[in-house]
Amino acid sequence: MRSYHITGPGGLKSLTEVQADEPEIGPFDVLVEMKAWSMNYRDLAMPYGGYVGNDKVKRNPPMVPLSDGSGEVVAVGKSVDRFKVGDRVAGAFFQKWLDGELTAEQIGSALGGAIDGVLAERVAFHQDGLVSIPKTYSFEQAATLPCAAVTAWQALTLGNPRPGQTVLMLGTGGVSVFALQFAKAFGMRTIITSSSDEKLERARQLGADITINYREHADWERVVVEQTDGIGVDNVIEVGGAGTFEKSIASAKVSGRVSLIGVLTGNPDQNPSPMMALFKRLTVQGIYVGSRAMFEAMNRAIEVNQLRPVIDTQFSFDDVPAAYEHLKSAKHFGKIVITR
Amino acid sequence: MRSYHITGPGGLKSLTEVQADEPEIGPFDVLVEMKAWSMNYRDLAMPYGGYVGNDKVKRNPPMVPLSDGSGEVVAVGKSVDRFKVGDRVAGAFFQKWLDGELTAEQIGSALGGAIDGVLAERVAFHQDGLVSIPKTYSFEQAATLPCAAVTAWQALTLGNPRPGQTVLMLGTGGVSVFALQFAKAFGMRTIITSSSDEKLERARQLGADITINYREHADWERVVVEQTDGIGVDNVIEVGGAGTFEKSIASAKVSGRVSLIGVLTGNPDQNPSPMMALFKRLTVQGIYVGSRAMFEAMNRAIEVNQLRPVIDTQFSFDDVPAAYEHLKSAKHFGKIVITR
Amino acid sequence: MRSYHITGPGGLKSLTEVQADEPEIGPFDVLVEMKAWSMNYRDLAMPYGGYVGNDKVKRNPPMVPLSDGSGEVVAVGKSVDRFKVGDRVAGAFFQKWLDGELTAEQIGSALGGAIDGVLAERVAFHQDGLVSIPKTYSFEQAATLPCAAVTAWQALTLGNPRPGQTVLMLGTGGVSVFALQFAKAFGMRTIITSSSDEKLERARQLGADITINYREHADWERVVVEQTDGIGVDNVIEVGGAGTFEKSIASAKVSGRVSLIGVLTGNPDQNPSPMMALFKRLTVQGIYVGSRAMFEAMNRAIEVNQLRPVIDTQFSFDDVPAAYEHLKSAKHFGKIVITR
Amino acid sequence: MRSYHITGPGGLKSLTEVQADEPEIGPFDVLVEMKAWSMNYRDLAMPYGGYVGNDKVKRNPPMVPLSDGSGEVVAVGKSVDRFKVGDRVAGAFFQKWLDGELTAEQIGSALGGAIDGVLAERVAFHQDGLVSIPKTYSFEQAATLPCAAVTAWQALTLGNPRPGQTVLMLGTGGVSVFALQFAKAFGMRTIITSSSDEKLERARQLGADITINYREHADWERVVVEQTDGIGVDNVIEVGGAGTFEKSIASAKVSGRVSLIGVLTGNPDQNPSPMMALFKRLTVQGIYVGSRAMFEAMNRAIEVNQLRPVIDTQFSFDDVPAAYEHLKSAKHFGKIVITR
Repeated sequence: MRSYHITGPGGLKSLTEVQADEPEIGPFDVLVEMKAWSMNYRDLAMPYGGYVGNDKVKRNPPMVPLSDGSGEVVAVGKSVDRFKVGDRVAGAFFQKWLDGELTAEQIGSALGGAIDGVLAERVAFHQDGLVSIPKTYSFEQAATLPCAAVTAWQALTLGNPRPGQTVLMLGTGGVSVFALQFAKAFGMRTIITSSSDEKLERARQLGADITINYREHADWERVVVEQTDGIGVDNVIEVGGAGTFEKSIASAKVSGRVSLIGVLTGNPDQNPSPMMALFKRLTVQGIYVGSRAMFEAMNRAIEVNQLRPVIDTQFSFDDVPAAYEHLKSAKHFGKIVITR
Repeated sequence: MRSYHITGPGGLKSLTEVQADEPEIGPFDVLVEMKAWSMNYRDLAMPYGGYVGNDKVKRNPPMVPLSDGSGEVVAVGKSVDRFKVGDRVAGAFFQKWLDGELTAEQIGSALGGAIDGVLAERVAFHQDGLVSIPKTYSFEQAATLPCAAVTAWQALTLGNPRPGQTVLMLGTGGVSVFALQFAKAFGMRTIITSSSDEKLERARQLGADITINYREHADWERVVVEQTDGIGVDNVIEVGGAGTFEKSIASAKVSGRVSLIGVLTGNPDQNPSPMMALFKRLTVQGIYVGSRAMFEAMNRAIEVNQLRPVIDTQFSFDDVPAAYEHLKSAKHFGKIVITR
Repeated sequence: MRSYHITGPGGLKSLTEVQADEPEIGPFDVLVEMKAWSMNYRDLAMPYGGYVGNDKVKRNPPMVPLSDGSGEVVAVGKSVDRFKVGDRVAGAFFQKWLDGELTAEQIGSALGGAIDGVLAERVAFHQDGLVSIPKTYSFEQAATLPCAAVTAWQALTLGNPRPGQTVLMLGTGGVSVFALQFAKAFGMRTIITSSSDEKLERARQLGADITINYREHADWERVVVEQTDGIGVDNVIEVGGAGTFEKSIASAKVSGRVSLIGVLTGNPDQNPSPMMALFKRLTVQGIYVGSRAMFEAMNRAIEVNQLRPVIDTQFSFDDVPAAYEHLKSAKHFGKIVITR
Repeated sequence: MRSYHITGPGGLKSLTEVQADEPEIGPFDVLVEMKAWSMNYRDLAMPYGGYVGNDKVKRNPPMVPLSDGSGEVVAVGKSVDRFKVGDRVAGAFFQKWLDGELTAEQIGSALGGAIDGVLAERVAFHQDGLVSIPKTYSFEQAATLPCAAVTAWQALTLGNPRPGQTVLMLGTGGVSVFALQFAKAFGMRTIITSSSDEKLERARQLGADITINYREHADWERVVVEQTDGIGVDNVIEVGGAGTFEKSIASAKVSGRVSLIGVLTGNPDQNPSPMMALFKRLTVQGIYVGSRAMFEAMNRAIEVNQLRPVIDTQFSFDDVPAAYEHLKSAKHFGKIVITR
C-alpha cells in the first residue's frame, strides 16, 4: 500500500512516498481504510527533528507522519468489541490516554511523533485508540479533529468554564479557530487577534465578538483589558509562546487562566517572567492535546451544536509535499486537509 | 410608604397591605426604590406557615413577603462603595451568601423567609446584599432573577457542565424555563416535560430539543432513556420532589447528576429510595438558590447571550392578592411579575 | 485446578467446590496464581440471587464468587507490558473502569457479580484489570483492598477533602474501618458509631476521635451535631442504608456530603425523604467501589502512611463455607480473609 | 499609642517608631489590642518601595508595616455579630477576600502593603477581616499564621491533594516549613531542600521524608526525580523564583503542579521558559496568600492535628529594627516573631 515516510531529520526533502507492507492486526486491533488527514504545526517540526526531542523521526527513523486522520473500519480482531466493520472512525492523538490525567507513559503514544502516524492508505489501531466520528461529518471534516480541535476543547474545558465568561484567542490557526467556535457554543464572549483584517472579518462571521489587528495595536493587551471593563479575560488560549506570553498574562483577569499551547513565536533568549503570574493568582495550564474521553465529549458538543470545522484547503494524497509547503507558508485560516 | 405584610400563618387571607415606616440606612446600607417584583412557589408557602419550618412568618410575624425585587438606588450610607445613587439593582436571595459554600448562618439571611422580604415601596439593603442588574433589562425582567434564575444557574453550573451534555427539565415552571434557556446557552441538548402540548410548543420555541407530554407518557423516563441512546441524561433539574424522584434517577446516566430543587409533588409517605442512586454512582445535589457570586456570573451570561426571561403575567402593586391566586392556580408558563 | 462456584440463587448451599479447567491467556492477559482472598457483604448477596439484579449468578450461572483476591503473576501474554512473571498483584473490582467517570459498560465488568470472580487457584486477567499491591503487604493484607478499601477511598476523596474536616463512619464493617484509617491519614477528625463498646474501643485504638454507642444513644445524630459545635460533619460514610439515612442527613453540615454506600439496614417501605437534603444543600454521592486509578492512588497513600488493614479472621481455602457463615453472623471487626 | 511607620521607600532607616492616634471604630468594626506579630520576606520589601508596585509605602506614605498580628478584642461596634470583647483573633491578610476566587478589588485590601498594616498597639478591623485563632495557640504562635501559613495552605489545597502524593519544598523559610507540616498532616510524602545540613536535620524532625542539600547536589532536580521512581513530584512549593523555576518544572511529574509563590532568587534577565510546562501538561498556579475561608479551614486542620508553628526568634516591640535585620540576614528557620 502507499504511505509516506519521513526518512530522518533532514527537512521537508526527507518526506518520501513509499510502498509499505499491509498492516497486520492482533485480536484487539482494528484495520482502518484511511480516507482523509489533516495537518498541524507540529507536523512541520517532524522533518526537522521533531517537537519534543524524543520523537521517532530522530530516535528511530523512518517515521510515518501525521497524527490526524479518519477512515472506515475494514477489519477487526477477534476480541474487538468497540467497533465493527463499516464504522467511521478517527485515531486519538495519544493512543493510550483514554481518560483521567495524562501520564509520562501515555505521552509516548502520540501518533506521528513518539510513534508512527497515520499518513498511509491503511492503518492498524488498537481499538482503544479510536473514536467514532460525528455522525454528520464527512471524512475530511472528521480528519481535522484529533489534534487541533481536542487541544482547543481541553483548553476551554479545564477549569470551570461558564457561559458569560470571556476568552481570548491569539491568531487564526487551527486551534484558535476551533476554540472560537467552542467558546461560542459555550455561550462565552470571544476576543481574537490577527495581523489580517480579512482573517478578522472571517472570525467575526464565526462569532467573534471583539477582533483586534495586532499590527495596528502593538499593545493589543491594553485593548483586551479595555474591552473587558478593565478586568481582563477569564481564559487566554495562548498559542504564540514566548513572543506573546507577557501580553497574555497582562490580558488575563485576576484569578484567571492562561492555557499554554504553543511555541510558535518569540526569541527563546527573551523568556518572559512566569513570576508575573503570581501577583494575579493566575493558573498557567499546560495543554497537550487531550484524552480519548475529551475527544468523545467534544464530538457530542459538535453534534448538538452542529459545529463545522473551517477547512482552508484540500490537497490530494499525491500532493502531500505541496500541503507541507502550504502549512509552512502560514497563510491558512483553519485546517489544511489531505484527501484520497 | 406602602408595603405588604403576611400577618401570620393564616393562608392567603393573612396577606395585608400596610402603611409602613420609611426604612433607615446605616453607613453600609443602600436604600432602593423598588420598581418590580416576581413570585416563586416558595412565596405561596409563606402565608401557610413557611417552607423550612423556621421562617419569620411563623417565628416572629408579621413578615414582608417576596425574595425577588429590583429597583433604583436612591440613597447610600457614608461607607458604601459598591453602589451609587441611580444604580439599577436587585437583592440577592441570601443576603449573606456572597461566595463559596453556603453555611447555616447564611441560610438565616433568606429574603422573604428567614427575614423580611422586599414587597414594599422602598427597602434598605446592606450593600453586600445587592447586585447590579443586566444592562439591557427592564426592572420587570430583572425582578424575575433572584430566586428562580439563580437556582437554575447553580443547578446547571455545579459539577462539570460541558456543551454537548444533555439536561432534563421537569415541567415548565420558573426554574425549569430558566434552566432550559441557560442549558441552550451552554450548548447543551435539552429535554423537557409538561402535561400541556401548548406549553411544550412554547418550550420548543425556547430551544427545547426533545419534549415529552407526561400525561401521554406516564413512563416518560423510558422516553428520556430512549432519546439518549439508552444512556440517560447528564443532569436532571428535579423540581418535582417525591412524586418524580424515582423517575429522575432512572432518567440519569451512570455517574450523572440529579439537581434536587423542589418539593412540589408526591405523597411524603411514599418516599423513593435514595439507594437507587448508589448503583448508578449518581450525585444527588441539593440546590438552594445560590450565592451573590453566582448571581453576578449569571448576569454576565445573560448579557453575553442576550437571554430574556419569560414573563407570564404582570400584576400591579394594587393587585398583589390576585398575583398570589394566579400563582396558586399553577397555570403560568414562566414568571409572574408585580410592577408599580 | 480447584475453584468455587455458586451454582445458582439457592442460598449458601449453592456454594460448591469444583474442579475447573486451567484458564487460558490471550496476548494481553496475565495468569495469576491466587494466594489470598477477602469477603464483602456483597458476596453474601450473590448466593441469594445477587445484589443489583443482573448478576451472573442469576443471568447465567454458575458464577465464581468474590471480587477480592491477590496473587503472583505466573505467566503473561506476548503483548503484556504492564506486568511480568513474579509481580505481586490484585484484581481491580471493575475490570474495565480504569480512570475517569464510571460508565454503564464498565459496571458490567464487576468481578464476582456481573462476571466471574476470583475464588479459584489461578485466574486470567486482562493486564488492564490488575494493580501492583503495596510493597510491604502480605498477600493476605493485599487481598482486603479491592472492594472495601477502594470504596472507602473514593468516598473520602471525592469532593474536596481537607485536613481538619470531620468525617462520620457508621458501624465497624470493612468500609468503615478503612475509612477511619484513611481519614486519620488525611488529618481529619473522625467520629464512629457501633452497638458494641468493645468495637468502639478498637476504633479508638485506630484513631477514632469520638465514639458513639448507638444502642445507648438512639439519637446518635444529636451527639454528632453536639460534638461538632452544632455544625455537623463534612462527610458521612453512609453504609447503613434506609435505616440510617435520615440520621446521616441530620448529622451532615450545611453544604456537606453524604457518601452513599450501603443497603444494609432498614425497611424499604419506610424510605427516607431525599428532600431533606435540599435545604441543607447537601451532596448525596453514590459510591460504587472505584476505578483502577483510585486503587493505585490509594496504594501510594497506604505505603506513605504505613497503613495496615484490620483482619478479623483468616479461613483456609478448604473452609470457604465457614467464612461465608462468619460473614453472615456480622460479628467481625475489619476483614474476613481466605488463604491457601 | 505606640506604632511603627515606614516613612517612605528609603530602606530600613525609614522604619520609625511613632506616637499614633487611637483608632476609632464604626458600627461593624472591632478594636483589637495587639499582642504579637510575625514577619515575612514581603515585609522586607516594603521599606524599599514595596513588592508589587502599588503599595501604600510608595503611593501614599507613611505606611504601618506588617500583615501578621494577633490580639484580643477590646471593643466592638454596635452592629458587630461575629466577635465579642475578649475574643482572641488575628487579621486576615486580604481584609476583603472572604471566600471564592480573589479579585482585583480584593488585592487592594492587603494589610501592610496596599493598606496600612498591624504593627501598632491597637488596630481597628472591619469584623469581616478577622478570624478566631486556634484555641490552644499563644498569641505568638497565632501571629505566625496570616501570611506564610495561609500561603502554604492554599498552595497545598488547590488542585486535588491526596494522601500518598509527594510534595517538594524549596528551602526552609516560613512558607516551606508550614507546607512541610501541612503536607505531613495530609499524609503526603515530603522532600525538602536546603543549603544547610543542620536545617535539613530540623526538617527531618518535622517529618521530611527526603532531604537534599542543594549545595552538594547542584542538580537537585535529578535527585528529586530519582527519589520518586523517575516520575517526579505531584506539587512543587516554588518559593525561589526565577533561579529555581526550571528545576522545579523538571522536578514535577507529568500532569503535576508547580505552586508559584516567591520571587526570592535569580537574575530577572535569565527568565526560564514557561514553555517547558507545556509538554508535561503542568499546572503552574500563582499563589497569593489566601482567603479568610482558607484561613479558617487551616485553623481547623491545625487544631485537629495539633500542629505547632516553628518560631525562630522572638523580638520585643522595642526591638523591631533588630527583627528586620534578622529577617534580612536570612539565617532563620521558621518564623520571626515580635511580642509586646
